[in-house]
Amino acid sequence: MKAGVVIAVDLGGTNLRLGAIDAAGRVLVRARARMGPHRRKRTLLEEICSRIRHFEREARACGRIEAVSLGFAGYTDAERGLIYFAPNLGGLGNIDVGPYLGKRLELPVFVDNDANCAAIGEYFKGAGRSVHSLFVFTLGTGVGGGFVVKGDIWRGAHGTAGEIGHTIVMAGGPRCTCGNRGCLEAFTSATAIVREYRRRKRGRGAGVRVKPAGKAGRGKAGVLGATAGELTARRVADLARHGDRAALGALDYAAKGLGIGIANIFNLLDPELILIGGGVSRAGSVLLKPAIQEARSIIYPPLAPRLRVKRAALGDDAALIGAARLAFAALKNR
Amino acid sequence: MKAGVVIAVDLGGTNLRLGAIDAAGRVLVRARARMGPHRRKRTLLEEICSRIRHFEREARACGRIEAVSLGFAGYTDAERGLIYFAPNLGGLGNIDVGPYLGKRLELPVFVDNDANCAAIGEYFKGAGRSVHSLFVFTLGTGVGGGFVVKGDIWRGAHGTAGEIGHTIVMAGGPRCTCGNRGCLEAFTSATAIVREYRRRKRGRGAGVRVKPAGKAGRGKAGVLGATAGELTARRVADLARHGDRAALGALDYAAKGLGIGIANIFNLLDPELILIGGGVSRAGSVLLKPAIQEARSIIYPPLAPRLRVKRAALGDDAALIGAARLAFAALKNR
Repeated sequence: MKAGVVIAVDLGGTNLRLGAIDAAGRVLVRARARMGPHRRKRTLLEEICSRIRHFEREARACGRIEAVSLGFAGYTDAERGLIYFAPNLGGLGNIDVGPYLGKRLELPVFVDNDANCAAIGEYFKGAGRSVHSLFVFTLGTGVGGGFVVKGDIWRGAHGTAGEIGHTIVMAGGPRCTCGNRGCLEAFTSATAIVREYRRRKRGRGAGVRVKPAGKAGRGKAGVLGATAGELTARRVADLARHGDRAALGALDYAAKGLGIGIANIFNLLDPELILIGGGVSRAGSVLLKPAIQEARSIIYPPLAPRLRVKRAALGDDAALIGAARLAFAALKNR
Repeated sequence: MKAGVVIAVDLGGTNLRLGAIDAAGRVLVRARARMGPHRRKRTLLEEICSRIRHFEREARACGRIEAVSLGFAGYTDAERGLIYFAPNLGGLGNIDVGPYLGKRLELPVFVDNDANCAAIGEYFKGAGRSVHSLFVFTLGTGVGGGFVVKGDIWRGAHGTAGEIGHTIVMAGGPRCTCGNRGCLEAFTSATAIVREYRRRKRGRGAGVRVKPAGKAGRGKAGVLGATAGELTARRVADLARHGDRAALGALDYAAKGLGIGIANIFNLLDPELILIGGGVSRAGSVLLKPAIQEARSIIYPPLAPRLRVKRAALGDDAALIGAARLAFAALKNR
């Protein structure tokens, strides 16, 4: 008899990724699809369900399917299998994805925040193995976070902990998609990087230290991938590497925000290791080097040598591996 | 035979408080002294030691002295009984207070951050009893924080977690005593409130939303108590209650920072309860009401009803009771 697998699903702002993953965290087969924009919960749920059904045949070839486990970019309730609010999925809320899929697929279904899944993935198989405590930033369409303590994700009293993207680092600063000003996400997400690049290209100059970007710079979700004339954060990073001044400025702006976020996490939580993951982290040293420099300049100097920041190791697989890990652990405890 | 007591010591920026406390968290006797400014570790340690020795007689009348437990306003290493850095004690660093006092007093000596002690105190005997998770802000000369999870304080990988006062909420904002700009402490400490009041009295107008206070407003440590012509945060709060516009403005500025700090903690850690303690919290509703309003305006609206913020209940005794609690727990585990 083959060992069991979990179908892990990573539903971000733009893409849906699937993987059949065994208990050792190996991704045996994977698939990927673009998500259409959805205005109704029903059609969103139906699309997710049909994507999983389609993938089931491939997954079954790898082993008995034990469960489905979903990581979502939004506020989730892991206990009840709910999505409270998915700002990057057209702002839909109160989606009972767990119960819906459980009934349709006749499998146990687990739901968690995608950054929580990525953090557990990195802790289990990636750059965060064998540390005491770990904070993972996931930089994508939005900015998420996951805090791992002694092998467990810290979900908080209501399951919504980890939202580093909506902590405010510059009161009165650039507008965030959430409606507030100066959230970390308004600096360091793909959305913010593209917006800042455009602003600089229009010649509106640098606003790095104090000046808010203002209403005119208000961004749209989904630009990591390929909306808005195909200008993506990845493209901006490429331009920066080739010395484009507006692109370098935009990356510097993002790094400034990320550096403050890293210093704030260090001062507040003192984790053994901080990891930077998500699609935007592929920008590499053009983003991470100035961010770490900024963080070190903030931290009380005698403590600064203790700051450990690395790039996450698992790339797009982090959330899949983490989601599967959470499902295997939950099945064991049943 | 009488039950044992712990001599708890709370060393803040201005005052040293002492208490003889039993295992049930009752403060059986207390004392208080002003700390002279110290430029050398040696004289600081000697003053602390002689204050404790003087108090020992009173404490002994309450029961057998089992240990001394100190809460300090600064970066501490609880494991090694060290103070790394005490910004409000003349900037002294690397003070081996635990080993020094242990040798002189011939008692077990425990050392922890004062906000950690206050958080444990409130969890054990105060406003945070029987909650799942708790974050305590301590607003005094500086701003500290303590995060309690399942009955334990979260100290981090190196013992320096909880420093909410030096998380940045307004990049480029008002200068903090730590040298950075826009730390929460630069808004919501006694030091910052007095400074902001003075600035407004001089007619430099409101800088609440975006404008940094600038170098001219740079504050001094120790103003909670009675330096600088006796103007204290308490006095500013009194003036605000009587309708003084500059005082109301200064409290509003402090509330703005505190509200962001509360929202950041809610988004990042989702604790069941947030408590506001420390001397500045005595300002009461003139500070807390607008702070909670600000926090609610930031938090994603469907989650906002879950925000629970209260005033801490134990006042000046919180850190003493918590320090004693930590000592009794450590003695039990020996």
